[in-house]
Amino acid sequence: MDTALLIDEVRLTPILIADPPLLNTQGVHQPYTPRLVVEVVTRGGVTGIGETYGDGKYLELARPLAAALPGRPVSDVNGLFALADEVCGDSRAADERVDAGGLRGVQTADKLRLSVVSGFEVACLDALGKAVGLPVHALLGGKVRDRVEYSAYLFYRWAEHPAGGERDDWGAALDPAGVVAQARRFSRDHGFSSFKLKGGVFPPDEEIAAVRALAEAFPGQPLRLDPNGAWSAETSLYVAEQLKDVLEYLEDPASGTDAMAAVSAGTDVPLATNMCVTTLAEVPEAFARDAVQVVLSDHHYWGGLHRTRELAAICRLHGVGLSMHSNTHLGISLAAMTHVAATVPNLDYACDSHYPWQTEDVITTRHVFEDGRLTVPDAPGLGVELDRDRLAALHRRWLDDDGTMRERDDAAAMRKAEPEWRTPSIPRW
Amino acid sequence: MDTALLIDEVRLTPILIADPPLLNTQGVHQPYTPRLVVEVVTRGGVTGIGETYGDGKYLELARPLAAALPGRPVSDVNGLFALADEVCGDSRAADERVDAGGLRGVQTADKLRLSVVSGFEVACLDALGKAVGLPVHALLGGKVRDRVEYSAYLFYRWAEHPAGGERDDWGAALDPAGVVAQARRFSRDHGFSSFKLKGGVFPPDEEIAAVRALAEAFPGQPLRLDPNGAWSAETSLYVAEQLKDVLEYLEDPASGTDAMAAVSAGTDVPLATNMCVTTLAEVPEAFARDAVQVVLSDHHYWGGLHRTRELAAICRLHGVGLSMHSNTHLGISLAAMTHVAATVPNLDYACDSHYPWQTEDVITTRHVFEDGRLTVPDAPGLGVELDRDRLAALHRRWLDDDGTMRERDDAAAMRKAEPEWRTPSIPRW
Repeated sequence: MDTALLIDEVRLTPILIADPPLLNTQGVHQPYTPRLVVEVVTRGGVTGIGETYGDGKYLELARPLAAALPGRPVSDVNGLFALADEVCGDSRAADERVDAGGLRGVQTADKLRLSVVSGFEVACLDALGKAVGLPVHALLGGKVRDRVEYSAYLFYRWAEHPAGGERDDWGAALDPAGVVAQARRFSRDHGFSSFKLKGGVFPPDEEIAAVRALAEAFPGQPLRLDPNGAWSAETSLYVAEQLKDVLEYLEDPASGTDAMAAVSAGTDVPLATNMCVTTLAEVPEAFARDAVQVVLSDHHYWGGLHRTRELAAICRLHGVGLSMHSNTHLGISLAAMTHVAATVPNLDYACDSHYPWQTEDVITTRHVFEDGRLTVPDAPGLGVELDRDRLAALHRRWLDDDGTMRERDDAAAMRKAEPEWRTPSIPRW
Repeated sequence: MDTALLIDEVRLTPILIADPPLLNTQGVHQPYTPRLVVEVVTRGGVTGIGETYGDGKYLELARPLAAALPGRPVSDVNGLFALADEVCGDSRAADERVDAGGLRGVQTADKLRLSVVSGFEVACLDALGKAVGLPVHALLGGKVRDRVEYSAYLFYRWAEHPAGGERDDWGAALDPAGVVAQARRFSRDHGFSSFKLKGGVFPPDEEIAAVRALAEAFPGQPLRLDPNGAWSAETSLYVAEQLKDVLEYLEDPASGTDAMAAVSAGTDVPLATNMCVTTLAEVPEAFARDAVQVVLSDHHYWGGLHRTRELAAICRLHGVGLSMHSNTHLGISLAAMTHVAATVPNLDYACDSHYPWQTEDVITTRHVFEDGRLTVPDAPGLGVELDRDRLAALHRRWLDDDGTMRERDDAAAMRKAEPEWRTPSIPRW
């Protein structure tokens, strides 16, 4: 193979990006969220970029993987998994604990490694595509659609962070009217026509009222509600009954396969998940018990774009729907999400994305939604370019941080406003 | 996207290739077997090649697909499936019949289309790889091994066809000594160290004796026996019991999921299949009932190299082993098999290939097995070149044929020797 395609250097840049005070059942987003930008440089001088979680446990796994890559073909993304198993094995992330209260589902060593690999895989595919003149979707077998639809991601939120941070002009949204106003702005600015409300923040009846208000404001348009597993099966069934005529799906109403299966058995509202099923190990039981009807793929969780396509094939086989999850992310990951989504025939639902909430980015030209959709880039690689000045500035923020923002901790952020706040036990209602 | 990567022309060339008188439970191979060579030419002047079954029903589906391709990006292989559904819909292949007696498993319209698409997908990937300077394995995410192991494919056979055709120097193999002699030559010439015997030809005790003789001649080396579903569950269990200490796996001993599940429940010998599970629709029930422990992938059946990788992911998920099936094929498909096999981490067994039996080819340089293995090509595309003179000569043979060889019919070939022969009913023993 062409030696120009061998990896010459890998750069890791942890950054902190501004995040609004978005509420969820665990607490509230911190003023800044850590992300990790991965740059893979070939001997031919082409640089590819990827992005993943930036908390310390991810960074710790990323460093040995970055050190092991030089000299390998940039096209060898299938080999990243065995390599990561080999070089990242001793990390403290290796304890196979279940973080049931977390927002990202089960946290196993394997899943952490996959999240790290995903950032490298995307960077390698970007570099490969740029080197040979192919868009990333062509490296995945080609797009089957020219545009990818996203949904508006609505949050209960405060107007500003209690202890500093950037302030935006969205104001607070803490009741049905606030949620509807937020949705109207998303609809107007980006053309979104499906809406997801992050729930689990207020007692279920208040959130039911917010979804009802959305249904009145946007009759017939797809609505979703996601309390991040905060409810009991009984509460979940109550909410499902109240909203069955307007919900496209209910996302992770309860926590764990048992509870999800119990809810699923009692309602016709499809249940979606990015918590109950976030690893392959969780698939067989959840599918066999019909605990979920829609899996929200996330190329970070699942180990990259190829693995996301494999997940799609598995969902197709078992007649389970496929949608796409999002955590706070930048334009690199949004490009990756759009490329892979474009190649999957059974991406049955509009994808989630936090992107409209992120006012900062590390790419030179921000993505623009039209009619709630992104046009799939046909330029080589991901079709985005790194803004090195912005990257340096956000890395400077990370360097200057005293450590409190380098780990995402929504409960700690909540304690700035409510000093007695503790991560609620599940089920919260 | 670069207009040089748009498809300019597609050429279909049906050919007849010489095939030895190999016996199976249906009859015997005809002197010539039909194959279809697919050439995809880009506007940039790059030609990619693929190969699939050449019987009339495949050719009939291939023609409208070939006509629909010009103007499409050669990289858009994911889109071939919907295109084939669209343009091949009216074929007579569209009757969803189950051909339980066939050697290729169920024959549905969908599976026929997938077999045709596979030839086009491989040709597109070959062209794309050549155009951008990447081997096909790199277009599938990169190889995870440098060599792919194949097994010796042993057949009961006659010395020559009863009614003409090419004659080779292998002689007859109709008893244990003949099978062992064949295996020794495969071992000596190609270095194969695992052996599969095509069974279902003689009463089970004779085939048990042949496998026992192989076990004595090659102690400790992996052995397989494949009667193509010719046995009852009871007979299958008898054979499994007799050979349990020497078989790596027993392939399709009985026909259908019910019988395979019954056999599986009664033995610890792993059951492999390229008949019980040859489509995704058959996977859920067969896996849920533990009817098979090893799936023999075949990129022709399954719709190409990307789909084969998806099948591998599905097998990985469900803890089912993966091996690779072969029908009569040329060096184009062997290259394709080698590329995809190199990218799959869980290809747990040596692959089958008829290739050593095929003395004719349409590529300029034949593949050479060393230690039973092929080195994965790193040249652009598949790494093989079309020999146009040979292609023209084999196409001439197809044109000159009176129609009897254009459809594979092992029972008709058998009637040349035994005029009263009819396809045996299943189970035969």
